[in-house]
Amino acid sequence: MSQICGMSSIQFDKAPHIISAASVVGKKEGEGPLGKLFDLVGDDPMFGEDNWEKAESTLQKEAAQMALGKAGLLPTQIRYLFAGDLLGQLIATSFGVVDMNIPMFGLYGACSTCGESLSLGAMAVAAGYGDYVLALTSSHFASAEKQFRFPLEYGNQRPLAATWTVTGSGAFVLAPKGGKARITGVTTGKVVDFGVKDSMNMGACMAPAACDTIYQNFMDFNRQPEDYDKIITGDLGYVGQKILIDLLKEKGFDISKVHTDCGIEIYDQQTQDTHSGGSGCGCSAVTLAAMILPKIEKGSWKRVLFVPTGALLSTVSFNEGQSVPGIAHGVVIEHC
Amino acid sequence: MSQICGMSSIQFDKAPHIISAASVVGKKEGEGPLGKLFDLVGDDPMFGEDNWEKAESTLQKEAAQMALGKAGLLPTQIRYLFAGDLLGQLIATSFGVVDMNIPMFGLYGACSTCGESLSLGAMAVAAGYGDYVLALTSSHFASAEKQFRFPLEYGNQRPLAATWTVTGSGAFVLAPKGGKARITGVTTGKVVDFGVKDSMNMGACMAPAACDTIYQNFMDFNRQPEDYDKIITGDLGYVGQKILIDLLKEKGFDISKVHTDCGIEIYDQQTQDTHSGGSGCGCSAVTLAAMILPKIEKGSWKRVLFVPTGALLSTVSFNEGQSVPGIAHGVVIEHC
Repeated sequence: MSQICGMSSIQFDKAPHIISAASVVGKKEGEGPLGKLFDLVGDDPMFGEDNWEKAESTLQKEAAQMALGKAGLLPTQIRYLFAGDLLGQLIATSFGVVDMNIPMFGLYGACSTCGESLSLGAMAVAAGYGDYVLALTSSHFASAEKQFRFPLEYGNQRPLAATWTVTGSGAFVLAPKGGKARITGVTTGKVVDFGVKDSMNMGACMAPAACDTIYQNFMDFNRQPEDYDKIITGDLGYVGQKILIDLLKEKGFDISKVHTDCGIEIYDQQTQDTHSGGSGCGCSAVTLAAMILPKIEKGSWKRVLFVPTGALLSTVSFNEGQSVPGIAHGVVIEHC
Repeated sequence: MSQICGMSSIQFDKAPHIISAASVVGKKEGEGPLGKLFDLVGDDPMFGEDNWEKAESTLQKEAAQMALGKAGLLPTQIRYLFAGDLLGQLIATSFGVVDMNIPMFGLYGACSTCGESLSLGAMAVAAGYGDYVLALTSSHFASAEKQFRFPLEYGNQRPLAATWTVTGSGAFVLAPKGGKARITGVTTGKVVDFGVKDSMNMGACMAPAACDTIYQNFMDFNRQPEDYDKIITGDLGYVGQKILIDLLKEKGFDISKVHTDCGIEIYDQQTQDTHSGGSGCGCSAVTLAAMILPKIEKGSWKRVLFVPTGALLSTVSFNEGQSVPGIAHGVVIEHC
């Protein structure tokens, strides 16, 4: 029986394994520091489709098929799909997964959705609700700019605090056994609102939520920063990283030696004009699949706290003068 | 240990109980056939706020507080919140739940979200992941019209196939014991796309998904329509009901004697100008809380298959010429 820990966490008795992972990204991500690690880099930002949303659906389809292929599974063998994206009403997901015919739970946690899908997927597998579960998330630079900011044709200037939405999709197959990495615990985030209203500074919007989840993880599991080889947030970027480290110091924890952020890892800030870093559901998902998991599987990292972060931004609430609350979901992944 | 049934279902060994429920609705719903059954009817469509989205957040807050109050619980006693709404990036939910500080999983299944939240909530409680879980969903006529159709000021005519989005929020507390109704099983829906492109005929978009889930439920649990006192879909309305009954007849099942639809129950078609019926995440949620659950609790109905239905509509994909796929989540609720 899995154990409830503290306020917000579960320690899995039968920790679900991540038996396969796949990452599909766009050209810019392929040119970044992790470029060679991704499974597939698409040169065409449209991925053969005629609009950005369909392009993102194709990203999801490709990532899902590749993760299934690596695990040697057919869609019919997958019990549940936990999936989501950034777009209104999750259209990238709806049209991306329709042909797979898998019972689906649609999720929205902004850029934290990868953590949400892995958490619920792990909870389902650990409870015996299915032998194979697929966690799938995506984002696309162009569909996100269209949804949240300006038309690309407008060529707006981007402030230095802004992040660059990753074009990418990550897919993960969870199962009771197999592979060299397993999810030993999860810490579920709350909506945290510090009243930040700058939609071009998502790092600042999300850092308080990341702080809340990481602090709660330390409390619930009675751990210190040193108990993790790495604590890796989703897409705080350089601006958000600094705020997170400061906020946790105020609570008595110094994570500066073990912290990194997928948004920092995925682009070369100096040459790729990405300012604060990468963002989007795809950012943490493809970095987990391409960089983090292989290190855990090899045993270079024994235990990682993976914390995808989400800014609950909507143009409607933003234009009505509301703040941008954040949420972050913690997933403990260990070598086995 | 709960049991996996067939392709898409779970039979819970320790069936989670619905220990309390609350419904908050708008004036129009209060004037309908179920008017006297709702816990709270708001005369002010703005619910004291200055925009529609905040009004919907307030609906959620009120419903959640009332359900907690009926169960004699504080927010701190709730382990997980499974919540969602129809708006892009779930803003009604984000701002509605932020003050409750409950670990949250944000869900999107269009108008099926009530079924999705009850399914995942029940799965969490049955697995021992928490003693109390809150399932919470909402919709608001005005925020939905703004998001999906025309500005209210435009005064557009509505085709007879159109449904009327319910202004309402339903909240449910699930627990391992207590109360007179329990969730004995769930059948999780897939995205089903029959290629229907008429966003003013959501019943036709969703009926194939409802058919798929109900058929799967019969297969997985080896049941017939007569094994249920009622099979109640979410918001197919009159148009969708006819299609659903026809589709299931083609598969060899006649549900016409036991079927009804929350969208049909909630308004008086003759006097309320609601055409095909009610719709929205709130429609199935408030009808469950106000009408269905009390009948189950009294034992008038021993076993009900509750199937909230969702049309995965987005203005973006719709304007790009895409169809409107559907999804439906089945929840088996029994008297105890």
